[in-house]
Amino acid sequence: MKLVTVGTVAFDNIETPFGRADKVVGGAATYISLAASYFVRQQGVVSIVGDDFPQGMMHRMRDRGIDLDGVEMVQGKESFFWSGKYHYDMNSRDTLETRLNVLLDLDPKLNDTYRGTEYLMLGNLDPVIQAKVLDQVESPALVVMDTMNFWMDNSLEKLREVVSRVDILTINDSEARQLSDEHSLVKAAHAIMEMGPKYLVVKKGEHGALLFNKSRVFFAPALPLDEVIDPTGAGDTFAGGFIGYLARSGDHSFNNLKRAIIVGSAMASFCCEKFGVERLLDLKQDEIDQRIQQFVDLVDFDISLVRE
Amino acid sequence: MKLVTVGTVAFDNIETPFGRADKVVGGAATYISLAASYFVRQQGVVSIVGDDFPQGMMHRMRDRGIDLDGVEMVQGKESFFWSGKYHYDMNSRDTLETRLNVLLDLDPKLNDTYRGTEYLMLGNLDPVIQAKVLDQVESPALVVMDTMNFWMDNSLEKLREVVSRVDILTINDSEARQLSDEHSLVKAAHAIMEMGPKYLVVKKGEHGALLFNKSRVFFAPALPLDEVIDPTGAGDTFAGGFIGYLARSGDHSFNNLKRAIIVGSAMASFCCEKFGVERLLDLKQDEIDQRIQQFVDLVDFDISLVRE
Repeated sequence: MKLVTVGTVAFDNIETPFGRADKVVGGAATYISLAASYFVRQQGVVSIVGDDFPQGMMHRMRDRGIDLDGVEMVQGKESFFWSGKYHYDMNSRDTLETRLNVLLDLDPKLNDTYRGTEYLMLGNLDPVIQAKVLDQVESPALVVMDTMNFWMDNSLEKLREVVSRVDILTINDSEARQLSDEHSLVKAAHAIMEMGPKYLVVKKGEHGALLFNKSRVFFAPALPLDEVIDPTGAGDTFAGGFIGYLARSGDHSFNNLKRAIIVGSAMASFCCEKFGVERLLDLKQDEIDQRIQQFVDLVDFDISLVRE
Repeated sequence: MKLVTVGTVAFDNIETPFGRADKVVGGAATYISLAASYFVRQQGVVSIVGDDFPQGMMHRMRDRGIDLDGVEMVQGKESFFWSGKYHYDMNSRDTLETRLNVLLDLDPKLNDTYRGTEYLMLGNLDPVIQAKVLDQVESPALVVMDTMNFWMDNSLEKLREVVSRVDILTINDSEARQLSDEHSLVKAAHAIMEMGPKYLVVKKGEHGALLFNKSRVFFAPALPLDEVIDPTGAGDTFAGGFIGYLARSGDHSFNNLKRAIIVGSAMASFCCEKFGVERLLDLKQDEIDQRIQQFVDLVDFDISLVRE
């Protein structure tokens, strides 16, 4: 495999000030693998679902080249379910309900093809599960990890163990501050890189994303959208575009990571345009190219004249 | 005059999670004119102070080429005073106390040199005062206006009258949403430009700034700083660098406004490094050049390879 992603494959109920959608397909691994599918063909997903998960969506994912042999289906159980409500400021949301359901049974066993993956994406999950997957892969060229404040609150020791073993960590700004106990994002980034990762990506939602290594920093804006219908999964979609682009190019230089951040940001902007994964199911290459060009235009300026 | 700024010249008490400073010199016109002084020499300030305002600071402003003939000094009265407290998230603050003091007497009468100004900066003030200044200038090449939610809450009709008469409005993201009654910043920007201004600058503090005209948008990040000591005046400093750069170059094209946004952002980043205006009193040209180069590096990426 070129890329293996572990994460949830699930249902969401989503409420925003502008509408609602019930029991739409969601889950970190769903968003990540769909976004990555525009850049890599040989990718697999490690997850678990109940017998309520729609076959139709699994067909559509397979049509996009996503191998689902790593997704265990458990008869008589329900898929992971999350329900959330966004406020007028779409950067904040409340979780109304979380039903772990079949996720409690997730104990990943990777087959040989998956073990040999070149790229590994650890989607947001219990770090115990993330570590089990990391233990089974043989020699990935790059490991990217996503996580969230819940695991910092409840499993900090295990979380830090996994963080110490990955190449790139993606978290949001308040999580970076929480994990490092530093208010300045610059200081937070350096403290987190001391824990192990060579790179840190700080996701700021509608305010863009920052990429740090020990000596450099890069900023990518989020695209100002006419309408944000549903930001659910935008962070995962970003991660999928990011690692998918890296897997396709095979170049892990800082300059190429910058491009991967722009690609991830472009994919995330599509995600927000409709509820659930709908917008990610059949994007055209020229839509993606045009969207990336919008990022170029958004930040492009000619500084030479400033110094005259 | 090349540039005239109307706004407060005042004292601030500032409390942050990392320190406090009492009775430091502040005020919108102070920050704006000091920031602009790195780009224009012939500029004047229209304001009012009490007899408590330090002569030493007025000397330092004059040393930077700032004409203070438009600043009325009233014996026996105290200068405008603001006291505020920042929280851990430095993007939000509480006003603890506002004493208008001598500001209640401000009734600007511009002399001939001021009336003939090429550039006019209407700092955040009662729109009635902003209108009085606008009425007195003859034919400025460009008028930039700053304001805040207080005037939207309390003087909306007068505010909208002034907005309709300016070329560029600078406000923050929540104010843009309030003024337009639109949640999407893209829609908000277009609604506000329908009110009169050809350009809108949306200031997002540590999340950067957006520049809109009717067909284009540009985003400039804020520089991630190791330490933000005091963000007071950063928005005014941004405006000062912005209009100062435009006044020096005389070019009001969208491409040059983009450069002016970067220059303003660079000046604002200096402002945050110390309490009050201290950091703006004697910057060196090479410090400014280096800071601008940091913005280039922060957002620069080579997209050609993304499309391969």
